[in-house]
Amino acid sequence: MGKRNLYLKNTPVDEALSKYLKALDGLLVPEREVIPAAESLGRVTAQAVYARYCSPLYNAAAMDGIAVEAERTKGASEREPLLLRAGEDFTVVDTGDPIHAPHDAVIMAEDLLEQEDGSVQITEAAAAWQHVRPIGEDIVAGEMLLPGYHVIRPIDIGVLLAGGITQLEVWKKPSVAIFPTGTEIIEPGQDPKDGDIIESNSRMFEAMAREQGADPTRFSPIADDYERLRQAVSDAVDSFDLVIVNAGSSAGTEDYTVHVLRELGEVLIHGVAIKPGKPVILAIVRGKPVIGLPGYPVSAYINFENFVIPVLNRLSGRTGRTAPQAEAVLSRRLVSSLKYREYVRVKVGKVDDRLVASPLARGAGAAMSLVRADGFCVIPQSSEGVEAGEKVTVELYRTMDEIDHTVVAIGSHDLILDVMADLMPALYPGNYLSSTHVGSMGGLMALRRGEAHLAPTHLLDEETGVYNIPTLKRMFTEPMALIKGVDRIQGILVKKGNPLGIRGIADLPGVHYVNRQRGAGTRVLFDYLLKKEGISADAIRGYDREAATHMAVAAAIAGGDADAGMGIESAARAMGLDFIEVGPEEYDFAVPVRFLELLHVQRFLDVLKSREFAERVEALGGYSLRQTGTVLYL
Amino acid sequence: MGKRNLYLKNTPVDEALSKYLKALDGLLVPEREVIPAAESLGRVTAQAVYARYCSPLYNAAAMDGIAVEAERTKGASEREPLLLRAGEDFTVVDTGDPIHAPHDAVIMAEDLLEQEDGSVQITEAAAAWQHVRPIGEDIVAGEMLLPGYHVIRPIDIGVLLAGGITQLEVWKKPSVAIFPTGTEIIEPGQDPKDGDIIESNSRMFEAMAREQGADPTRFSPIADDYERLRQAVSDAVDSFDLVIVNAGSSAGTEDYTVHVLRELGEVLIHGVAIKPGKPVILAIVRGKPVIGLPGYPVSAYINFENFVIPVLNRLSGRTGRTAPQAEAVLSRRLVSSLKYREYVRVKVGKVDDRLVASPLARGAGAAMSLVRADGFCVIPQSSEGVEAGEKVTVELYRTMDEIDHTVVAIGSHDLILDVMADLMPALYPGNYLSSTHVGSMGGLMALRRGEAHLAPTHLLDEETGVYNIPTLKRMFTEPMALIKGVDRIQGILVKKGNPLGIRGIADLPGVHYVNRQRGAGTRVLFDYLLKKEGISADAIRGYDREAATHMAVAAAIAGGDADAGMGIESAARAMGLDFIEVGPEEYDFAVPVRFLELLHVQRFLDVLKSREFAERVEALGGYSLRQTGTVLYL
Repeated sequence: MGKRNLYLKNTPVDEALSKYLKALDGLLVPEREVIPAAESLGRVTAQAVYARYCSPLYNAAAMDGIAVEAERTKGASEREPLLLRAGEDFTVVDTGDPIHAPHDAVIMAEDLLEQEDGSVQITEAAAAWQHVRPIGEDIVAGEMLLPGYHVIRPIDIGVLLAGGITQLEVWKKPSVAIFPTGTEIIEPGQDPKDGDIIESNSRMFEAMAREQGADPTRFSPIADDYERLRQAVSDAVDSFDLVIVNAGSSAGTEDYTVHVLRELGEVLIHGVAIKPGKPVILAIVRGKPVIGLPGYPVSAYINFENFVIPVLNRLSGRTGRTAPQAEAVLSRRLVSSLKYREYVRVKVGKVDDRLVASPLARGAGAAMSLVRADGFCVIPQSSEGVEAGEKVTVELYRTMDEIDHTVVAIGSHDLILDVMADLMPALYPGNYLSSTHVGSMGGLMALRRGEAHLAPTHLLDEETGVYNIPTLKRMFTEPMALIKGVDRIQGILVKKGNPLGIRGIADLPGVHYVNRQRGAGTRVLFDYLLKKEGISADAIRGYDREAATHMAVAAAIAGGDADAGMGIESAARAMGLDFIEVGPEEYDFAVPVRFLELLHVQRFLDVLKSREFAERVEALGGYSLRQTGTVLYL
Repeated sequence: MGKRNLYLKNTPVDEALSKYLKALDGLLVPEREVIPAAESLGRVTAQAVYARYCSPLYNAAAMDGIAVEAERTKGASEREPLLLRAGEDFTVVDTGDPIHAPHDAVIMAEDLLEQEDGSVQITEAAAAWQHVRPIGEDIVAGEMLLPGYHVIRPIDIGVLLAGGITQLEVWKKPSVAIFPTGTEIIEPGQDPKDGDIIESNSRMFEAMAREQGADPTRFSPIADDYERLRQAVSDAVDSFDLVIVNAGSSAGTEDYTVHVLRELGEVLIHGVAIKPGKPVILAIVRGKPVIGLPGYPVSAYINFENFVIPVLNRLSGRTGRTAPQAEAVLSRRLVSSLKYREYVRVKVGKVDDRLVASPLARGAGAAMSLVRADGFCVIPQSSEGVEAGEKVTVELYRTMDEIDHTVVAIGSHDLILDVMADLMPALYPGNYLSSTHVGSMGGLMALRRGEAHLAPTHLLDEETGVYNIPTLKRMFTEPMALIKGVDRIQGILVKKGNPLGIRGIADLPGVHYVNRQRGAGTRVLFDYLLKKEGISADAIRGYDREAATHMAVAAAIAGGDADAGMGIESAARAMGLDFIEVGPEEYDFAVPVRFLELLHVQRFLDVLKSREFAERVEALGGYSLRQTGTVLYL
């Protein structure tokens, strides 16, 4: 079986990081450089910056009007107005103009009675220093404008320049070398063949490093070749501040990274108690940090956040970096192991003024779960999990304002939900749709627990043959409405050309079938159809093989290891499969009546009835918009 | 007095913006462009992006081990292990390797008993599809990867590439022309003469536009010349998406902007009910938005946020933009006018788990108040103000994490506070000092109200001649400590060369004096010294002229309109003044004992006792570190 790397340790996250940073103490020495203040946005001050000039630079008029000597206006009143002569008694000033001795006050233009000859009358004495901005009111020369270790914002650039600072010393951007490795990986844009993996992590790292104020260089992929990797890392530590080697940090037969790093330097940590993301390598080679990150995108991302960013911050002078946090109620039970600190991606929605966090797919490979996530929920290593309904702290990726204006849909999946999510902010800026796919029944349960605004559902009532309404009436006691969605065609998805000649449900026994998960409307329909045909579930090979969406069913068939599965026509089209029509069904949205008045739920309805939506659904094919947007009060 | 623009209206903020955006409806048409996915960080998708490939691209091993046909492993158990032969019964696979039919399961390496001849024994049957990542588990071809109007993050770049997308359509960056205007303004780097104003707003706008994903072009300043400004704006609307004219939006004699815009196009709004920032111009010239912003930096900043960013967002496809908000208790009463919506800059501190917001200087020219602010508190137009102790909503500029680790000091000002603020994050990353200057007595009052962790104070007890301790004992009932700070020399600041020959307090009657505000320790000392000399306050010309800090006193004297003022030696040095020593005083930090155990307060103490602090204070001059860092329990 070859040489395997079975010696991964399980060091707790904080212990691993602090051991590493301690070992790097004195080695991570940030460098300084002098740059123009006007181009310093986002850079970090290397030391405190002191003003060269005052602002204002002189006593200045704070209003448009006239500059006078206050003493000489004494006694002016409504009854005994005082006449002031231009040049002699006053000078006309605009806001910002300098006030020179003996003048020490400004009278506003509005308070003057102008005379024909250019003199003015005043009816009130001026107090000394009224409407005058004293020299240095805003900035005093010698005053500290910015402390060291400060990330420069637009307003900072303004005061730097106003205070006479045109150049300043900042920390140099740390340089980061990124090495993708692996014989199986190919560059994006190349046509993938069987066994190929498109290299995408390095570009993600590049963007993450850039966001942290670093200067990344991404190298071309290196095949699994001990000598080439050794040479590349050895060269890189001479010219970069930090080196990242991606993949090859696990314990597989071709994972050379740890051996290379052991030969070149010292491996301090190999394996961390984190999930996803265990196989991380923290090493030091010739005084430079070298970090090996796992290949799975989610593992790679989480470890970059946990280990690379703290090292980068030491080099860039940044201190800390935290996402905004919020308390939310967990929608589903989360079991976690005492062996790991676990990072669970969650969707976060605000329903009835309560923040609800719904866990997403937990696999290390589920990069889309990171894209779809509104935040992370961290389960500490010391916890065995969290019960549904308990409070958890969520690190948010989105602003609370966005979350406040997001319609939360939990239930059955259909491609039209993606279209809706796309159209919401396009047609009504600032409004969003978030959808989580747990099947029709799962959605209705979530609705009942107050975790969603609406539940996309297509549940056939076997007795009446009516969709959705009977189930809703049975399950809910509060006033409910049904927003009619689309009629869509359900059918059997089969390989292009239908090689097995499947014509209907009766032909399914014997072929490799891929089913949907329990509670999915499509599975309910399938069970109903099997019963009607008198076929037992045992006769279906693959009845227990569950896919979570129509598209996952389609992918399994397109991939070649399943012959048939039930699903919708648009999924068949998207994956180039043949489709055997079984019949139409009604895909609607269950919604408690009290949510109908919410502005963003109204926007959802508006989008559903829009021309843009109709056009997009038309293009997908397989749908009818017969009743779309009609609201039935049950 | 020339032609004045007295016709500023007072349109409510929301009304002004919605009128403007309505008028621009159909005119703000964002453009699209196609860019490489790898370089799309921070850009905004112009339309939904769909995956070209599945990820994984094929059924893939999720573990290192062997790929088998599950059916053929049936019956294997501890008692009756099954022997599998390489090639025939299984293939060795690493994580990520493709699984080909008839194989449909992976058995982990850990569960195998390897034999001499390369065959393996298993003691448990494999379930179909165990440890296999099915094709499309993460991304299914045809699935929506990103909706339209989505700001691209690092993880998005990862899934785009993994899903086969190397190019995508984004909204083009809107182009913005920025015109600084005014005869009195000079470019940064030029030596300012009397009446000159260093132009700094345009660089701030540039940075703000860049942060919003726009592409700004900043032009050289234009003097107040009607024809030149008309030509510049007229040319700019032909080649830019948005034009900003800075200053010249007020009602002064030389404010041409509104006249120019009226000639070239339509001025929809001139004057908005906002403070600071009233004189804003919202115009449309040949179908392009042209915005006139006021010259005061804070007004300019607030109006950029309120009016420029919403227009930019329409052009860049961004929706919304909100700072995180938090509820805080207001430390001081805020009076506001029904004529304006007011934006008050606040410092925000966390004391005893309570968030406290302390208002900063409210002037439109106080750019440093924006730099020092931790956030804004918005007083609606409909409110006459907020009482001390009431809750307000603060838009935060800093993260809660930073605020949690910030020592809040309110009280007397000294330059060493700047040094401390600079050293805190440098020596102890992630720890900060925030200081607000309200004088010694103001600080002790704030401490008593629970708004600060510590109060810098130098209050002389007239009876005992002892600093700080008697006052603390009198004012507090809870257990207090005094952290000894520095001994510093107080004295009289006079012009370079001491032209009036001032030797002491007795020489002050008759000269122009600049005093400190009520409650300042320096003023208490001055009153004490006057009394000792038998001089009445009335004899001091300028006794009522108040400056808020030592540096402001020094600036007034350096600026030429005051002859003398009391203050510390370091302020005299910073502004090149002469200094007549009066005597040493003790500048300490009052702190409730319960705060001494807070980690960041401990860090404050550590910094106070550090070598770095001693060196910096040494360089300032005028201090003694005799007892620095000693804690006295009172």
